[in-house]
Amino acid sequence: KMLRRVLCTVLFVGALPSLAEASQGHISVVLLGATGDLARKYLWQGLFQLYLDQVSSGHSFTFHGAALKALEPGQMLMFDVLKKLSCPPDESPNRCAVLKDQFLKLSQYHQLKTAENYTMLNREIETLLRQEGLQEAGRIFYFSVPPFAYTEIARHINSSCRPPPGAWLRVVLEKPFGHDLQSAQQLAAELRSFFREEEMYRVDHYLGKQAVAHILPFRDQNRQFLDPIWNRHHVERVEVVLKETVDAKGRTSFYEQYGVIRDVLQNHLTEALMFLTMELPANVSRAEEVLQCKLQAFQSLWGLEKNSAVLGQYQAYASQVQEELQKAQDYISTTPTFAGVLVHSGSLRWEGVPFLLTSGKALDERVGYVRVLFKNRAYCTQSETLRDAGHSQCKAKQIIFYIGHGALNTPAVLVSRNLFRPIMPEGSWREEVGQSDLLIFGQPLSDYHVYVPVKERDAYSVLISNIYHGRKDFFITTENLLASWAFWTPLLNSISSQPLRLYPGGVENQHLLDFEMVSGEVAFTMAEPLELLNPTRLMPSDFRTIQSKFRQSPLVSAWSEDLISQLASDMEKAASRTVARSGQFHLALSGGSSPVVLFQRLARHHYAFPWKHTHIWLVDERCVPLTDTESNFFTLHNHLLQSVRVPYFNVHPMPVHLNQRLCVEEDRGTELYAKEIMALVANASFDLVLLGVGTDGHTASLFPHSEDGLEGAQTVVLTESPVKPHQRMSLSLPLINKARRVFVLVLGKGKHDITTLLSRVGHEPRKWPASGVSPSSGQLVWYVDYEALLG
Amino acid sequence: KMLRRVLCTVLFVGALPSLAEASQGHISVVLLGATGDLARKYLWQGLFQLYLDQVSSGHSFTFHGAALKALEPGQMLMFDVLKKLSCPPDESPNRCAVLKDQFLKLSQYHQLKTAENYTMLNREIETLLRQEGLQEAGRIFYFSVPPFAYTEIARHINSSCRPPPGAWLRVVLEKPFGHDLQSAQQLAAELRSFFREEEMYRVDHYLGKQAVAHILPFRDQNRQFLDPIWNRHHVERVEVVLKETVDAKGRTSFYEQYGVIRDVLQNHLTEALMFLTMELPANVSRAEEVLQCKLQAFQSLWGLEKNSAVLGQYQAYASQVQEELQKAQDYISTTPTFAGVLVHSGSLRWEGVPFLLTSGKALDERVGYVRVLFKNRAYCTQSETLRDAGHSQCKAKQIIFYIGHGALNTPAVLVSRNLFRPIMPEGSWREEVGQSDLLIFGQPLSDYHVYVPVKERDAYSVLISNIYHGRKDFFITTENLLASWAFWTPLLNSISSQPLRLYPGGVENQHLLDFEMVSGEVAFTMAEPLELLNPTRLMPSDFRTIQSKFRQSPLVSAWSEDLISQLASDMEKAASRTVARSGQFHLALSGGSSPVVLFQRLARHHYAFPWKHTHIWLVDERCVPLTDTESNFFTLHNHLLQSVRVPYFNVHPMPVHLNQRLCVEEDRGTELYAKEIMALVANASFDLVLLGVGTDGHTASLFPHSEDGLEGAQTVVLTESPVKPHQRMSLSLPLINKARRVFVLVLGKGKHDITTLLSRVGHEPRKWPASGVSPSSGQLVWYVDYEALLG
Repeated sequence: KMLRRVLCTVLFVGALPSLAEASQGHISVVLLGATGDLARKYLWQGLFQLYLDQVSSGHSFTFHGAALKALEPGQMLMFDVLKKLSCPPDESPNRCAVLKDQFLKLSQYHQLKTAENYTMLNREIETLLRQEGLQEAGRIFYFSVPPFAYTEIARHINSSCRPPPGAWLRVVLEKPFGHDLQSAQQLAAELRSFFREEEMYRVDHYLGKQAVAHILPFRDQNRQFLDPIWNRHHVERVEVVLKETVDAKGRTSFYEQYGVIRDVLQNHLTEALMFLTMELPANVSRAEEVLQCKLQAFQSLWGLEKNSAVLGQYQAYASQVQEELQKAQDYISTTPTFAGVLVHSGSLRWEGVPFLLTSGKALDERVGYVRVLFKNRAYCTQSETLRDAGHSQCKAKQIIFYIGHGALNTPAVLVSRNLFRPIMPEGSWREEVGQSDLLIFGQPLSDYHVYVPVKERDAYSVLISNIYHGRKDFFITTENLLASWAFWTPLLNSISSQPLRLYPGGVENQHLLDFEMVSGEVAFTMAEPLELLNPTRLMPSDFRTIQSKFRQSPLVSAWSEDLISQLASDMEKAASRTVARSGQFHLALSGGSSPVVLFQRLARHHYAFPWKHTHIWLVDERCVPLTDTESNFFTLHNHLLQSVRVPYFNVHPMPVHLNQRLCVEEDRGTELYAKEIMALVANASFDLVLLGVGTDGHTASLFPHSEDGLEGAQTVVLTESPVKPHQRMSLSLPLINKARRVFVLVLGKGKHDITTLLSRVGHEPRKWPASGVSPSSGQLVWYVDYEALLG
Repeated sequence: KMLRRVLCTVLFVGALPSLAEASQGHISVVLLGATGDLARKYLWQGLFQLYLDQVSSGHSFTFHGAALKALEPGQMLMFDVLKKLSCPPDESPNRCAVLKDQFLKLSQYHQLKTAENYTMLNREIETLLRQEGLQEAGRIFYFSVPPFAYTEIARHINSSCRPPPGAWLRVVLEKPFGHDLQSAQQLAAELRSFFREEEMYRVDHYLGKQAVAHILPFRDQNRQFLDPIWNRHHVERVEVVLKETVDAKGRTSFYEQYGVIRDVLQNHLTEALMFLTMELPANVSRAEEVLQCKLQAFQSLWGLEKNSAVLGQYQAYASQVQEELQKAQDYISTTPTFAGVLVHSGSLRWEGVPFLLTSGKALDERVGYVRVLFKNRAYCTQSETLRDAGHSQCKAKQIIFYIGHGALNTPAVLVSRNLFRPIMPEGSWREEVGQSDLLIFGQPLSDYHVYVPVKERDAYSVLISNIYHGRKDFFITTENLLASWAFWTPLLNSISSQPLRLYPGGVENQHLLDFEMVSGEVAFTMAEPLELLNPTRLMPSDFRTIQSKFRQSPLVSAWSEDLISQLASDMEKAASRTVARSGQFHLALSGGSSPVVLFQRLARHHYAFPWKHTHIWLVDERCVPLTDTESNFFTLHNHLLQSVRVPYFNVHPMPVHLNQRLCVEEDRGTELYAKEIMALVANASFDLVLLGVGTDGHTASLFPHSEDGLEGAQTVVLTESPVKPHQRMSLSLPLINKARRVFVLVLGKGKHDITTLLSRVGHEPRKWPASGVSPSSGQLVWYVDYEALLG
């Protein structure tokens, strides 16, 4: 009955405008949360803009606002919003008035609460289409609702509101999409049970910002200029920045759960960065290719570590949280409101180029930009005072995608005049002149070619247009979303215990939030000012490395990241000293997952390590081809050897793959390796052997309840592992115990029990091979992290 | 009789001053060329300064001026100079007057022309010492004479003027020391037949400039600040610059033979650079350690190529040469008066950092400096307009050793205030304040800590003091000299045919001499202005690559450097296309010397080469261990693999060294390699095989007059070379001919005969294996340089 009445109301005013003339089919747009904040502020205006743009496209439209509210109050609320829709300045007032009238007639409110409501909505659409003799083109469902409501609504749409075969369904989702990798995976799995991937449009409204949306087209249209310089040889650094002056007051219930990284960096800044760094597909208008290249760009990002970020919190935040969330006076929030993060890509194009992502609340200005600063490649022979500044190649060279606000107060694309005059699409961007004395990134505006949009468009109207055009590359696919969370989650986990720098807010911040890059890490430039330090803010990482004894040998213990960096330093020291003494360093490394972090640390932070004089040996190996991802050597290669310069001749993988077969006795791989060791390592005494310990007490590939490799003259042995792949090759315990140094690395809660046990038992290698590690004349050091040591 | 008279003259005036009090021994200083320009301007003053400084040191001195002139005119000329010696401003006038008087008494003139003259000089010194009852400490012979006179004088000194055992001999030599590696070697060999290495002090007066001389002490005293930042991760670039306003007028007879590179870059700028880049010895005051580290720094320099330099000549130079050297009107000089050279070091510390060496005559200003510009590692969160400039880490960071002249007009050491406050030796350098609005390298002087010498000292007086103190690290050892010439000579050879940019001189030069770095090369920033172009200046390298046919296959020909770069580009193109199509690229490379330049080119200029997906195979190998310098793989590794990122698994050296023995049939190395090829290369058809041709017509390791590897099913064979090492392993001709692409590279005059022969003969692999190269379905391209093609 409700349907009747609404339709009647509409038909009473006159026939549905324009529907009859349509030939390309009808599109129904359903806006869920039609009376909410976002809908009021942006979405209805965006839908109206879509109608203005597409009324003559051949499609016909109806717009269905929906909410939980009952029909009449909802209807009133909604039409209050619709009446206030504004006409864009470039639209003729007459045409706009007519079209606004039509838009109102095409729009209706629905209460969508129960399963029946959805069935009814579906029936209404079908009826209307039948009555008007229209073909259905598709349906758009825009979820402007809190995420907890997603599943329920998705289920209803999937079961009751799917369009008939031949017409498409597009559901538009608003963030947050989870708060870490696991929750995002869960949400994605749920949605996947209702919608196909191509039906989902996850909104990151930054992708609708005109300057951001133009990054890829700009790169495409200016390939001739950018191809030679868009790489690590020419780019000095990239900054992706969103600074806000507002703080979180009034929104702490949301903000306290998310913080600046989840709120801004994981989505907006990361997406902008990907547009910058991804390889350019041959055709940038093919969404599939764009998305593929973007995913690859994610794959080549280096993992973030604790020291990849500096974090801050504005001083008033704590009391705002206490007040708004009714927390106790001594409640301490660890939510960052400022973050500066250093991102690196391992791709050949970008290797070594620092990407700085920065965002914060309560800063000195509101501004957003993506800035590419090029290296100064020129030497100007004429002294600066005698130089004709206009042509100087010695001035800074930059390309800036200015998102908005700030000194320019408009979206813009800026290209230094000493770089090139860019090709810009004339219809949508125009060259701006004047205001030349304004300083932008250290240079007067007159030093740049400056382009601004012909028509400034709101991000949502851009995005709604892209939904209409099915441009999935302007939205976040599931793969893209999970790749981004996979990238950010480790950092989010590791910083939960990191101290935040308190800052007063606004221009008072001065240099307090300036930060610097050192060896792939970042740190605040200024020392922590004492008066701002919260004395109760003692974090676990403030504890210093513990030095003590374990099994009568030196023990080094710390949180795992500090422990790894200590171990890496100790290894470098040992290597340098040994090379200085004997000219070479024989290092035997274990497989397993613990050393991976160590390998990365060595590769990225230890430039002075004497790799050229280091021989790399394997402590143990799985009987799989070296190129198998299960191979210890493969892991070692990927995380270390690929990044440092160990001569080919100094690398000694175990010969587990001879004559196209794996660890066959008669191929005598163990003998071969033993001979190689004898030939190169003086007295077969390695300079350093790095071991791990398994939860069962195994070390190297020497397993409990087996005699293999525990005694005797054989230095390299084949063994059997209780877990797959069963066959292993390993150095023997006697050979290990001949080493000049043995470092044992034990990480993680999972190792707590075996660590406790080993701390108590004596020399019982048959039960626990790790207890047999005891260099006859060398040094033994245990590196055990707090989690393994203390549980 | 002359001796008598001179001594009498001296003794008549009074007893030789101060000699009697001496206890540490006597030093005789002999200045050869005592009435020449250098002696008049600098050397006598330097010797006087030495006397002032050391009169109380315990040594006694006599100073012997010598020249070819007869006694009386020579004596008069010399004493005219001595009378005008000035007292340093910091010396008390009374003391100076007394000491000057003494200095005159201790100085005498000698005609040194014949062998007898030298014998007599020696006798005089001996007599004097005997008479005064003095022990001899040592003798200094300062050669301020043209180089052609060196050998004669050296012979006389060696045979007649050596001091008795226990006393030292120091001979001081002035440049030029040869004009290329060969002439320098010859000169060095001659001198070595007269003097021991430790007796020779080759002067580069730049090492006496106070700012240059302070580079090492500065690095030493500021280790705590510099250790973390004195490397490629922090240094953006280094500029070593000597600009002159004067031109070569009046000196063209010298200049026309030398040019700016030999005159300034090979010696002064290179030495200053070495002080900057060398590893710091534990003890910088131990000359031996310093010289050792400096030599190592030379070893790690990358070889210069033609495009490592931009060259210019001021416009008036041609007519000056024509006039002064009586050349014809159409005489064209190819001598550069301006050079900008890009130098790279391959050391781990400096890899990738550009070192720009620049010098020229007729420029806009006179100035010399060594400038280290650091990377900007900071991100300043506060917007620039709201920033407190004083503390900003976002300002440029630099360290400048200001040699003199220019805007500062004094030697100085400048350190950006946002870097650190340096430790400076108080006695010799003082902090300078004031003049803060002067702009130095883009920043007001107030942005720097500025230090100037307490006492400004002339380079020669510094050097003479260093000769006295036996500080050999302030002089150029033979090894050092030859290392420098070895570095510069290839560039000097390759630029003889390179066009010079003409420049008007002075401030008129504007941006004409600005240059830029691109992919390890340099080029002038502005296109050649047409009005300055000398139309007759067509150089060989202006000829474009010739494309034609050779043995019915495509031929690419050019001068060798252009040919190599064409080949490298073609290889990259082939690799990229193949990887795009099939995911991997199988590349088989030959040994020999020709490919070395190619390997270097690939390593340094082809960053986009898909190395990660490339498999490297060997075409042939010598039966020596892979780590032997004769091994083809060793060469390949050093020049290519070490610098790019080919995964370990993709590198396939030939198994010539199995079971600790070389190429033994029963170890079945050929079978092993054949199997590896079969397992990995589809159809055993390599994507690209690179071959060379020997003067005897061999290719790969397939030699004339042998059937081995020419036919049959065996794909990898053992062969015998007519030259050592005789045993080889090689791909067979049938396997090579299965490749999808075969590129043959032929370089150099030595290959002209075989090239001519191959252009005429048919398919006769038994006589000339290279004539058997004929891919059955692949592409064959010949890359033959002009020298091989045209002789």
